[in-house]
Amino acid sequence: MHFPTVALIGRYQDTGLDTPLRALAHALAQAGRHVLIDADTARNTGLTEYPVATLEEIGENASLAVVMGGDGTVLGAGRHLAPYGVPLIGINHGRLGFITDIALQDAHGALARVLEGSFQIEERTLLEGSVWRGDQKMYSATALNDVVLNRAGRGGMIEVRVELDGAFMYTQRADGLIIATPTGSTAYALSANGPILHPGMNAMVLVPVAPQTLSNRPIVIPDTGVLNMTLTAMGRVEVGASVHFDMQTWSDLQPGDRIVVQRAPYAIRFVHPEGYSFFSTLRRKLHWNLMPQATDNVE
Amino acid sequence: MHFPTVALIGRYQDTGLDTPLRALAHALAQAGRHVLIDADTARNTGLTEYPVATLEEIGENASLAVVMGGDGTVLGAGRHLAPYGVPLIGINHGRLGFITDIALQDAHGALARVLEGSFQIEERTLLEGSVWRGDQKMYSATALNDVVLNRAGRGGMIEVRVELDGAFMYTQRADGLIIATPTGSTAYALSANGPILHPGMNAMVLVPVAPQTLSNRPIVIPDTGVLNMTLTAMGRVEVGASVHFDMQTWSDLQPGDRIVVQRAPYAIRFVHPEGYSFFSTLRRKLHWNLMPQATDNVE
Amino acid sequence: MHFPTVALIGRYQDTGLDTPLRALAHALAQAGRHVLIDADTARNTGLTEYPVATLEEIGENASLAVVMGGDGTVLGAGRHLAPYGVPLIGINHGRLGFITDIALQDAHGALARVLEGSFQIEERTLLEGSVWRGDQKMYSATALNDVVLNRAGRGGMIEVRVELDGAFMYTQRADGLIIATPTGSTAYALSANGPILHPGMNAMVLVPVAPQTLSNRPIVIPDTGVLNMTLTAMGRVEVGASVHFDMQTWSDLQPGDRIVVQRAPYAIRFVHPEGYSFFSTLRRKLHWNLMPQATDNVE
Amino acid sequence: MHFPTVALIGRYQDTGLDTPLRALAHALAQAGRHVLIDADTARNTGLTEYPVATLEEIGENASLAVVMGGDGTVLGAGRHLAPYGVPLIGINHGRLGFITDIALQDAHGALARVLEGSFQIEERTLLEGSVWRGDQKMYSATALNDVVLNRAGRGGMIEVRVELDGAFMYTQRADGLIIATPTGSTAYALSANGPILHPGMNAMVLVPVAPQTLSNRPIVIPDTGVLNMTLTAMGRVEVGASVHFDMQTWSDLQPGDRIVVQRAPYAIRFVHPEGYSFFSTLRRKLHWNLMPQATDNVE
Repeated sequence: MHFPTVALIGRYQDTGLDTPLRALAHALAQAGRHVLIDADTARNTGLTEYPVATLEEIGENASLAVVMGGDGTVLGAGRHLAPYGVPLIGINHGRLGFITDIALQDAHGALARVLEGSFQIEERTLLEGSVWRGDQKMYSATALNDVVLNRAGRGGMIEVRVELDGAFMYTQRADGLIIATPTGSTAYALSANGPILHPGMNAMVLVPVAPQTLSNRPIVIPDTGVLNMTLTAMGRVEVGASVHFDMQTWSDLQPGDRIVVQRAPYAIRFVHPEGYSFFSTLRRKLHWNLMPQATDNVE
Repeated sequence: MHFPTVALIGRYQDTGLDTPLRALAHALAQAGRHVLIDADTARNTGLTEYPVATLEEIGENASLAVVMGGDGTVLGAGRHLAPYGVPLIGINHGRLGFITDIALQDAHGALARVLEGSFQIEERTLLEGSVWRGDQKMYSATALNDVVLNRAGRGGMIEVRVELDGAFMYTQRADGLIIATPTGSTAYALSANGPILHPGMNAMVLVPVAPQTLSNRPIVIPDTGVLNMTLTAMGRVEVGASVHFDMQTWSDLQPGDRIVVQRAPYAIRFVHPEGYSFFSTLRRKLHWNLMPQATDNVE
Repeated sequence: MHFPTVALIGRYQDTGLDTPLRALAHALAQAGRHVLIDADTARNTGLTEYPVATLEEIGENASLAVVMGGDGTVLGAGRHLAPYGVPLIGINHGRLGFITDIALQDAHGALARVLEGSFQIEERTLLEGSVWRGDQKMYSATALNDVVLNRAGRGGMIEVRVELDGAFMYTQRADGLIIATPTGSTAYALSANGPILHPGMNAMVLVPVAPQTLSNRPIVIPDTGVLNMTLTAMGRVEVGASVHFDMQTWSDLQPGDRIVVQRAPYAIRFVHPEGYSFFSTLRRKLHWNLMPQATDNVE
Repeated sequence: MHFPTVALIGRYQDTGLDTPLRALAHALAQAGRHVLIDADTARNTGLTEYPVATLEEIGENASLAVVMGGDGTVLGAGRHLAPYGVPLIGINHGRLGFITDIALQDAHGALARVLEGSFQIEERTLLEGSVWRGDQKMYSATALNDVVLNRAGRGGMIEVRVELDGAFMYTQRADGLIIATPTGSTAYALSANGPILHPGMNAMVLVPVAPQTLSNRPIVIPDTGVLNMTLTAMGRVEVGASVHFDMQTWSDLQPGDRIVVQRAPYAIRFVHPEGYSFFSTLRRKLHWNLMPQATDNVE
């Protein structure tokens, strides 16, 4: 049997999430699966008919985690579950839903097919990063989308010296610098004019935000390297600078601090229904290369 | 009475144009207008029930020209009629229809409102350009969209020295260089990463195509200046280079040739139904800033 | 006599500014000019041998203001002096110096030529903006470079509805939105991928920072219009949003607040030595279109 | 002994190449190497004191090929020698010299160090492509930089349907479409706004030239896939379309033709002196992220 124990995790801040979540739990139980509900989700939605488990217990016991929410919810759950190797499936209850590629109305059918064994597994790499002041590690975290260094407010900029495996790359003066995984290449990095990386790439892409040189260009590097970024200057010290690992923030960067980034030793595994197409998601979600039509009536 | 004499011009290559064209002519005659049919249009569509006129005769006699086709048809008619000051109204019988902002199905209603006096006039500047070899003028033409210098095929590039009112701007090495009017800023220049210029701007924008320097950036200049572009080198002489004024081509450029471009002394006047919005056209035709939606189902 | 009364303004935070400033004051006095020293500058540099004046008194009495510092210093002085019509000349004592196009070592020669009448005047438009909450004006300021709306930190975004003269343009979801003058087009807007606007343009350019749509593009509009921007949403209310008029900040934006921007009724007048070339400054300061060379040895 | 047999290949069209080439041959012979001269090079430079060999014979017998010229010369020699596994070293006798990273004046020292064993080997992937009309193969070739589909002249565009491993990616309407290797990412693809790919990437990047949609973005894909591109339409059939494998051209594309592109089964091996840095080359040759300086005096 595929996936004998299935955990349910939901963006519990969403009102109205309890109904579809309960229906999904019921369907999974009907299909003979052992159902676990994430403790926070259970407390916030009142979905208490099933065994409750922390993310750590889910990591140890679940064979599949179904996450209902937006990409942010999946990012959060994914970072916790990746070390345990539990695969995730995302149900879109949010606005954009790039990672959560299953629409809510298709959730039952899609899940049924997955439980019957009709699915594909996709591995997505994670980054792990740490902040160093001298030889003291100040902070560390993992990121599925990106590590972002930036100035805290307008009126400043940051200057970052970047090295790859000890070799000097460049000094970047900009609002910020994004180091994105292939997954993150369609998130914030894309807004900053980065290229799209196919999820199958073993790569990181460095994309500056509002760089001060005209001759800038994003660069894609193998994810086998270790990036070492030193904050060499801040436009206005009082404005401050911070570093973000997905949405986790270390906001106390000082000149001289180093941020070290490399691929994490484990990956996130996503489950997609058979027939999933990354390119189709690009077209649907980003209007990628959508051709204007004479008949279009976009207001 | 607004617009007592109305000329009809159509993209006669389109099969099936005769029916809507005839219906439009009929409606105009019913509305008490004197109807003229462009000679080429008449010959190719068999629409021979009305007086026939050359573009020159239309320029001298018509108070309004209704052009049915795509943007290319309007560009062509517009260049001919601009010196006479005859305003144009574009009916979209083509694929994209940026200038021809009235859809075919709305043509009768829109035209009726215009004839009743509910319209707005918009002036669009034209460029006039000439090609010089030494002190000999080899070619000259006008353009509503753009003047484009480019190499004739792959494997080459052109190098162009650009001066504005005698002051050196830069030497551009690229596949091509586009000098666009505000109208042309939403045409080829947009594909080459140029900015959008509001039609009310008195400006030209210079946009290189595939420039060889990283530190390139489009530049917007006042349209009161005279641009002087000298072809200083060609990557491969045998590949050749050419200059295009909208779709009119001079394909025999040689190193040392100069192209002089400035605003034409007359403008094209477009008639729009009341309520016309340039920004709405941008959104509808280009999907400008169209926000991806969770519910989108673009295949 | 050209410029009988000359005021000196310096970036008094710079150590070592007093020596060149004193030398300049001496040269001006030798040339028979009445010299005024900006009060703050005098206090901070100890340059007390000449009459001291506030910026307002300089505005009323000076026929020329010589500003020694970086572009920021000139921006600040310019905004104060613009209403009085006092022309400015910028001496570069800073790092980049786009507006301050005279290098410190050339200052005496350049200034001597200007005093002899060999100069050109260039007008640069200013923006004036205000922040409205309902019908209450919360803040207002002028800007020579740009008005920038942005989210205060990472993890948020802003959503802004933009209207021009009452016509809906678009809703932008982005890190920020820049409205730049031609002067500002070579500042922050350029980092955010905006086009260069020739200083002679009567235009504003709207450039989003890290926009969430792929189909975004900067747009250049006439500076005769009134822009009305409503903050319709913030990604994370706790992150906050702010608006900046050059470096002057109003950091308490709330959803529903409106920012109104239009050209100021007065302009800044810059004095350049004869032979000044905007394009040359572009090439020197931005490496605009600088062609890589086989012999280059940039480390 | 490292590299006992060394072949010399030169861009024989360059006047004055014979002197440095002869000096290099002499130094190699002095160092006890068996020297071979490429037949075409020998004939055109008169360098006839050494054994002459065709590229095929060089492939079979040489342990190292020294190529003096520009990147184009190395591309040509590299495509011929790659199947034989002969490593190449490029001496810059051209203008830009991205691949040929050794300057002519440093050639003797650099070569001496390489012969003594102080070098690093870098593998660069090649693409192999073929043109199909129905089930007939019309043309095939390899490319170290890129495969480029484009319209033959202005006034047209091409429409290409792209599939990766049988999955539909998109339909691109543009002046052209570039499929570049990491090596080619710093060549033509860079001009068309593509990202830089580190040479260690196993990747291809697809970059459109002047695409007609605003919502376009380059995409990086693994080089394990097979790209299938069908020319679905041409703006103007009479303008024509062509496909280029580096500088090798097939200029007779017709609607319906398919171009199949994948990684070649062999790679080119470049020899660099110890201490070679890809990033340093980026900075030197492209002015990548070169910071404008107050003291710069670029005219």
